[in-house]
Amino acid sequence: MLQGQRTWIFDNKPVILSTATVGGPDEAACNISKDFDLLHDDMWLQQSSFEKAQTMMMEEACDIALNKASLKADEINFFISGDLTNQITPTTFAAKTLETAYLGLFSACATVTQSLALSAFLINAKGAKYILSGTSSHNSAAERQFRYPTEYGGQKPPTSQYTVTGAGCALLSDSGTGPVVTSATIGKIVDMGITDPFNMGGAMAPAAVDTIMTHLRERKIDASYYDLILTGDLGEIGHAISKEMLESEGIKLDDSNYKDCGMTIYNEEQAVNAGGSGPACAAVTTYGHFIKKIQKGELKRILLVATGALHSPLSMNQKDSIPAIAHAVSIEMGSDSQ
Amino acid sequence: MLQGQRTWIFDNKPVILSTATVGGPDEAACNISKDFDLLHDDMWLQQSSFEKAQTMMMEEACDIALNKASLKADEINFFISGDLTNQITPTTFAAKTLETAYLGLFSACATVTQSLALSAFLINAKGAKYILSGTSSHNSAAERQFRYPTEYGGQKPPTSQYTVTGAGCALLSDSGTGPVVTSATIGKIVDMGITDPFNMGGAMAPAAVDTIMTHLRERKIDASYYDLILTGDLGEIGHAISKEMLESEGIKLDDSNYKDCGMTIYNEEQAVNAGGSGPACAAVTTYGHFIKKIQKGELKRILLVATGALHSPLSMNQKDSIPAIAHAVSIEMGSDSQ
Repeated sequence: MLQGQRTWIFDNKPVILSTATVGGPDEAACNISKDFDLLHDDMWLQQSSFEKAQTMMMEEACDIALNKASLKADEINFFISGDLTNQITPTTFAAKTLETAYLGLFSACATVTQSLALSAFLINAKGAKYILSGTSSHNSAAERQFRYPTEYGGQKPPTSQYTVTGAGCALLSDSGTGPVVTSATIGKIVDMGITDPFNMGGAMAPAAVDTIMTHLRERKIDASYYDLILTGDLGEIGHAISKEMLESEGIKLDDSNYKDCGMTIYNEEQAVNAGGSGPACAAVTTYGHFIKKIQKGELKRILLVATGALHSPLSMNQKDSIPAIAHAVSIEMGSDSQ
Repeated sequence: MLQGQRTWIFDNKPVILSTATVGGPDEAACNISKDFDLLHDDMWLQQSSFEKAQTMMMEEACDIALNKASLKADEINFFISGDLTNQITPTTFAAKTLETAYLGLFSACATVTQSLALSAFLINAKGAKYILSGTSSHNSAAERQFRYPTEYGGQKPPTSQYTVTGAGCALLSDSGTGPVVTSATIGKIVDMGITDPFNMGGAMAPAAVDTIMTHLRERKIDASYYDLILTGDLGEIGHAISKEMLESEGIKLDDSNYKDCGMTIYNEEQAVNAGGSGPACAAVTTYGHFIKKIQKGELKRILLVATGALHSPLSMNQKDSIPAIAHAVSIEMGSDSQ
């Protein structure tokens, strides 16, 4: 199961039975809006706080994924999820509604792959029959948490990214039909000394490169093994940096086989600066948009590398740098999986 | 591996090779001070913030556990840990220092058993050779985060508990000598409507009972299977409530076979009201005090049930109740393990 220092191979092929994605008004206007299962035209979802709206989106995503697979919440062994908010409160309240056993994670915008890696491991090793693996974020909740409340009207530099309002969820099982999770590489903290909370992409790029390089080395494959290496939310700045770093390691990728969820989701008319971000960014883009390409056979094998900036300088000390992490998970169509 | 809905049996007997505990000045004066590996007489550890002091304690605990097992950090596959602070920042900075692959968790005061359960699962299923599993808390960091800064001087009711300043860590492996982790039961969110952030024990007691009952039912054992059922930090109030609830379920326990880490750690002269709490409470008490009793043969089998209050009303909405969770892990001496 372990191969190398921090890569897992899933020989029993945990299956993604279904996925579900929910978004807000910006997502309803985005590039991949048709790939969402549910879109809201109100940032509040008629709730009394943004965090409660986020909870509701996570609950909706879980419900939709369950419905697609004709399963009920009480058949699920574990809900494995996290988010950006203090004490991952939105996730916990969704877990309360689901009434399933719950493993709470914190890996910021890398949560989707930390959860998917652990979920696939548990399924692969017969520790569960069904797992709901997901994550969520809310633009207004994240702005208040990490920068300034939106109402403050602070201007943002072009390096900043726009937190996705949404929730994404995958329902995994030990059997059934669907894309399978074939391997995962768990990230290390990489900290290159960036202290600017408006340049998370720059902080996260070296973490993505470290995890991609480790994954390829420990699996003894080269980058061409994948049709697509898909980073989570490096945005334009971080993605360009990571591409250059990979090139200097001898790995040449182009726009067709190296993409970023944060650059995929929004369109040019949306004021998102360097692109989308937030735990929901990689979750809704992968589980909404790219998973369909795998299901249709347009993509055979992808490596999803979600990246997280694990510390906001505003929460501890403005002079501290931003440690980042990236966890990678490979997904491919079941029938092509051997 | 899965038995029932949410219990794992670890047939390959993951071994706790070593443990380490670090504490602050209150812990240096506590009941079990002689069981600590390292005690500090300064809440700041000469750092510029309480969170940085907490980071240092987590790093020290990992170092001591590694030294005891004659291992180096680069031999470790994963560091699996979390804490109470926003974005689990102290844990992340410790992970940065360790330079191992890192899985961040959030399960508040139930983190020690969530981490130990996942770590044992990964080792048992050959997903790792060595894992550092731990958690930490700092009284002053937690007070500021969840209630009021200590300097504010707010009075506290007798139901309140005192967050332990410290870090505890266990080093797990697939082979070697030491106590073994034999099973785990993952908790569900239990919310009985308690809204008082100064009565976390009361909020957590039903979660502990739910997990204990589920564990016994799914393992098909009765409570007498264990020499000791050890709750994390229910404190006097929560422990008494949980005992009554267990009794009404037909499970009769007394002070010799049903204890609480929060009632074990501090002595009567210490102004801790209903007892100790915080992720470090169950970690230092178990990994310092009780593990030695297992190693000496004074305890044969224990069930550690760490409980977490997963939401501070102050962080979301004062009217919201406090969802709680408890994860249980059974530990026994290796030679008696079959």
